[in-house]
Amino acid sequence: MGVNADERLLVKALAQAVIKELRENTRSVALGVSNRHVHLCREDMDALFGEGSELTFRSALRQPGQFAAEETLTIRGKKGELKKARVLGPLRNATQVEVSLSDGYALGIKPPIRDSGSLEGSAGITLVGPRGEVQKAQCAIAALRHVHLDPDSAALLGLEDKQLIALEFGGERSAVLNNVLVRVSPQFLPEVHLDLDEANALCARSGDIVRLVLPEERL
Amino acid sequence: MGVNADERLLVKALAQAVIKELRENTRSVALGVSNRHVHLCREDMDALFGEGSELTFRSALRQPGQFAAEETLTIRGKKGELKKARVLGPLRNATQVEVSLSDGYALGIKPPIRDSGSLEGSAGITLVGPRGEVQKAQCAIAALRHVHLDPDSAALLGLEDKQLIALEFGGERSAVLNNVLVRVSPQFLPEVHLDLDEANALCARSGDIVRLVLPEERL
Repeated sequence: MGVNADERLLVKALAQAVIKELRENTRSVALGVSNRHVHLCREDMDALFGEGSELTFRSALRQPGQFAAEETLTIRGKKGELKKARVLGPLRNATQVEVSLSDGYALGIKPPIRDSGSLEGSAGITLVGPRGEVQKAQCAIAALRHVHLDPDSAALLGLEDKQLIALEFGGERSAVLNNVLVRVSPQFLPEVHLDLDEANALCARSGDIVRLVLPEERL
Repeated sequence: MGVNADERLLVKALAQAVIKELRENTRSVALGVSNRHVHLCREDMDALFGEGSELTFRSALRQPGQFAAEETLTIRGKKGELKKARVLGPLRNATQVEVSLSDGYALGIKPPIRDSGSLEGSAGITLVGPRGEVQKAQCAIAALRHVHLDPDSAALLGLEDKQLIALEFGGERSAVLNNVLVRVSPQFLPEVHLDLDEANALCARSGDIVRLVLPEERL
């Protein structure tokens, strides 16, 4: 028995309704607010916490495999220092310090707003650990606000890695943030990342649901 | 000699062009970023700086008659304190402390987001001056972001006191902020006021030009 024209239309309408609903769900993403933190390379881990030392798991982050460690460091700038900055694991290829612009003023540095890993021309900083200090010439950034997406979610929303989109926040300090970087990887789960300045400016907290504004809506 | 129909049309077109240009200029307003600060009443001034003491002029603010004083205070909360908080003059009828939400975390208080003067249910705080301390039960707010307008500018833009509008910020951290309070008074000059959390979240600085988004554009 074949499928007649009416049934085809019905199936098409159903598929469209399901896709619309899926897109609406997918574009509502949980917020993760990042306080200042440090990613370490093996060499700096050795220098700061001792040869061959390992990070101690403290709590899992939403992104698979990523975790907050028990270890903390003092971040020292020309003007001031910030104690107990959390180290995040696992270790990376390059040490990277992520601070807010407020932290930058307190430290006396000017962190550029950058995607993770883009350290050329970033701010110099000294890291102070229990077993030693490390001076880094280019190391500190203010994280470019971004949304992590798995490939399926990105495909459903028609979004690609490195694209810039907008985010809509409700509440007392309702706002639309532009220039939000989309990052797509099979290792990601959907999550919006803001720093503390941004979260406080919006009265937003980790776990809040944020709405992605898709490029097609901004015309 | 009378005015003919052609001349009337010409004058009308000219008037419309001038009004459009004026509105465009008027809606581009300079930003003033407020760090934490304190407004004092006479009684608290006496208690903190000595009987009959007066504020010492340090620098003029953009709003006529308002000034930063040489005097500073320590703001103390349950958890921490913030030193050297600037006192603004002149004295007011009620003492009011304006802090950011970041400051609130550092102090261990939860300042509500409020218009200036709306202190009911605001956060308790202790002020520490060179001559004494004052405990205030309801005193600390996070300032509701707002734009000061003189009546002529407000009329030109079709805006009224207490209305909520949006603000458009360009640059790296481009954004639209909603829920911005319009305040109209003959004592005001046009100026947008944000706190430091908001300014840092937007990479914005005092003197930046901000664009008012008028309600008619948000339909």
